[in-house]
Amino acid sequence: MVTTDFTLEGRHFRRDWHGPESAGHRTLARGLSDLAAMGAKPLAAFLSLALPRGLEKRWISLYLNGLRELAERAGVPLAGGDTAEAPGDGVLADIVLLGSLPEGTALLRSGARAGDLLYCSGRLGGAAAELLSLQQDGKSSRRRANGIGEHPQLFPEPRLAVGARLREKGLATACIDLSDGLSSDLAHLCEASEVAAEIELSRIPLHPLAKGNVELAVHGGEDYELLFAARPETKMPRAIAGVPLTCIGRFKRRGKAPQMSQIAAYGRLTELRRGGWEHLIGS
Amino acid sequence: MVTTDFTLEGRHFRRDWHGPESAGHRTLARGLSDLAAMGAKPLAAFLSLALPRGLEKRWISLYLNGLRELAERAGVPLAGGDTAEAPGDGVLADIVLLGSLPEGTALLRSGARAGDLLYCSGRLGGAAAELLSLQQDGKSSRRRANGIGEHPQLFPEPRLAVGARLREKGLATACIDLSDGLSSDLAHLCEASEVAAEIELSRIPLHPLAKGNVELAVHGGEDYELLFAARPETKMPRAIAGVPLTCIGRFKRRGKAPQMSQIAAYGRLTELRRGGWEHLIGS
Repeated sequence: MVTTDFTLEGRHFRRDWHGPESAGHRTLARGLSDLAAMGAKPLAAFLSLALPRGLEKRWISLYLNGLRELAERAGVPLAGGDTAEAPGDGVLADIVLLGSLPEGTALLRSGARAGDLLYCSGRLGGAAAELLSLQQDGKSSRRRANGIGEHPQLFPEPRLAVGARLREKGLATACIDLSDGLSSDLAHLCEASEVAAEIELSRIPLHPLAKGNVELAVHGGEDYELLFAARPETKMPRAIAGVPLTCIGRFKRRGKAPQMSQIAAYGRLTELRRGGWEHLIGS
Repeated sequence: MVTTDFTLEGRHFRRDWHGPESAGHRTLARGLSDLAAMGAKPLAAFLSLALPRGLEKRWISLYLNGLRELAERAGVPLAGGDTAEAPGDGVLADIVLLGSLPEGTALLRSGARAGDLLYCSGRLGGAAAELLSLQQDGKSSRRRANGIGEHPQLFPEPRLAVGARLREKGLATACIDLSDGLSSDLAHLCEASEVAAEIELSRIPLHPLAKGNVELAVHGGEDYELLFAARPETKMPRAIAGVPLTCIGRFKRRGKAPQMSQIAAYGRLTELRRGGWEHLIGS
């Protein structure tokens, strides 16, 4: 299959917050995360890049370094693309990925059934927390993460191995990647699967950078972890490829109640509304 | 193979000159023309579209109509894509095309040899002429062409049938599509093939809109005709699928002389320099 994802300066990154390596990494990570959510193996990447006149060569070179470093780790050749001059002041990138998986086996958004459990991979809220601190500090550290997960905003890690294993072992009934945020992406799963869902806030595995702020995990975006459904009888491993998997809720039949609800730490059940995230970067 | 092409407002079209159907048509035509130049058959198209906030729904709907109309005629399904909000005021599109052809048979830019003849398809200069008149009138007629070639700027016709036949019959040794303009695209052929070239200005088939102005044919861009090389002994048909093919020059060995030269109507041989075109739309 083919996925395409824009990465637009001012919308998906800011040059003063995200260093060039981060921007390059994130361009490819968005596309790889799409493939991860389907359980697909990446075959080749194609980059379309429009650059504003006068952009320093060094920025471009570091941008490509960031992209290529992730491409090498993910084993996906950068097979071509297009370059153009951008009409405005912003860098515009579009990443196209070819992925493969056996016909008819892709993890879909539409497979969740009432009674299924809701899981996420990794720890949530880190990308939003790091973005907030970039906003406050007004500049990027520009340092590459030493350990995976140290810079969840600047260098998110697409969960290719997790998605592939979930698909191969038949562990998940539906899957999506957390790009817009848990509350938005769960709504996508619920709509595609025609079910409702309930999450238990106390079960959500928080990224240390989120410092206990569960709002960042629920409404923050760009963690690029996987959110997936599984039959309750499925024996779910505690981790895949070193990435923890956590049950954070369950799917229910659609009814008159809100489509999504959340159970607070003190047990109260309330409606979960889709939270905005894009306003953090977008205008 | 995969091709990707940006179509960026302010760079590749202007909303006040090109109607929405034209912008949609041109987005796809750019990608199809890339495939035509390789002699490939289009299999599927993927559109990434970033739209400025507040863009009228009607514009988007007409844009997609323009794109779909060409897609249907070319027999290429629009198989997916991505939408995003554009960071600025301009529409940003990236078209990805999957094409197929038997392995190792693609028409390349690098196959021209000294002694080969230089051909073009169709008639040149029409796209530049129509753009100049849009510039002067300041608005688009927004009417779809009734006959192919009536609006070479607004509704260029990618030469898929010509490219496919040239490849299948082994008629061409190298090929490129005329997107940047004859003088620029011929330079690409010369560089890739490591040859020089000479064109005879009087032989260039001018589009009626160019009204005899050969400069528009030589330095104007976006005609999306094919420019190709063929062995001198090849029996070239006069037309393929109704599109005339015209010999307009020949390839020579590289030497101390300029890489490209032109023979004027009165027989004088002068250097042909790459002419700019992008300034007509770009800032």
